[in-house]
Amino acid sequence: MIEATDFRNGMSLLATAVNVVTTEGAAGRYGFTASAVCSVTDTPPTLLVCMNQATRSHANFVENKTLSVNVLGAHQEHISNAFASPLDSEQRFEHGSWTKLETGSPILEEALVSFDCEIESTQTVGTHSVFMCRVVAIKQENAPSTPKPKPLESLQPSNVDIQSLIYFNRAYHHVG
Amino acid sequence: MIEATDFRNGMSLLATAVNVVTTEGAAGRYGFTASAVCSVTDTPPTLLVCMNQATRSHANFVENKTLSVNVLGAHQEHISNAFASPLDSEQRFEHGSWTKLETGSPILEEALVSFDCEIESTQTVGTHSVFMCRVVAIKQENAPSTPKPKPLESLQPSNVDIQSLIYFNRAYHHVG
Repeated sequence: MIEATDFRNGMSLLATAVNVVTTEGAAGRYGFTASAVCSVTDTPPTLLVCMNQATRSHANFVENKTLSVNVLGAHQEHISNAFASPLDSEQRFEHGSWTKLETGSPILEEALVSFDCEIESTQTVGTHSVFMCRVVAIKQENAPSTPKPKPLESLQPSNVDIQSLIYFNRAYHHVG
Repeated sequence: MIEATDFRNGMSLLATAVNVVTTEGAAGRYGFTASAVCSVTDTPPTLLVCMNQATRSHANFVENKTLSVNVLGAHQEHISNAFASPLDSEQRFEHGSWTKLETGSPILEEALVSFDCEIESTQTVGTHSVFMCRVVAIKQENAPSTPKPKPLESLQPSNVDIQSLIYFNRAYHHVG
């Protein structure tokens, strides 16, 4: 049996991207900063998001049944901080410029990439919900307009001028 | 409806840590390089791992019902490459020094942190399995021996001399 503190100390060394996860619908507009986002499969395009059930807006995400994942770039610490702060929902969305795609969930215009999703299923694991999300639209600023498969270059960067915000060892970092 | 290619291009901008996920038991010893690893909850300590069902060793992980997640440091690209290569299982484990904790799944001695887990449940999502894993032991090289909560420093790095391996934009990077 291991302690929650030991688990959190260990997990502080699992580097993650920093994302703002949002929803908008009959239950209102909400968003929070999340590191627990993970690609699942491309057939069908699916990602997952873990959310603490004690979070104020948890029931709103469940009721709206949609969400978007906005992956933050290196210079968007202020947006991460706003969506992890005690600010209320409307005050949070004063940070950043927001648009919409298919589901109506807020899409951050300056994000590295945004995934607009329908929540297909929810699994309860201890204190958290795991939302399994079907991706229905994607917004990617620097997407190549004419992708050309080049097997020998498949491990080379496709967009050399972009940087991601990373959370590692209880601090922000940049990569790219 | 979005294409798998667009999903993969988008996901290439979601930075991840690089992990070697291993198992050892009645079904043998296996390991693979994984980016789709995610913290779920600390109550009880739980993480998840996504694995393609078409992977040669998928059935072995399912049968052993245990796995460990070994988070790679900045200078362990060669281990990531070995466990993502066509090498067979025994050849892969010639890379790195391996030990065990509770379940018997191989633990990489030089990893930033290793989580030894029992697979509690498996959810099938398209081509992949999502293993929900209870953490039963942790190995962390630079763990503080006497953790002292310091609220005002909670966002400061606890281990300033460590670096993580990151995969972002289809290339390796270092942070920390």
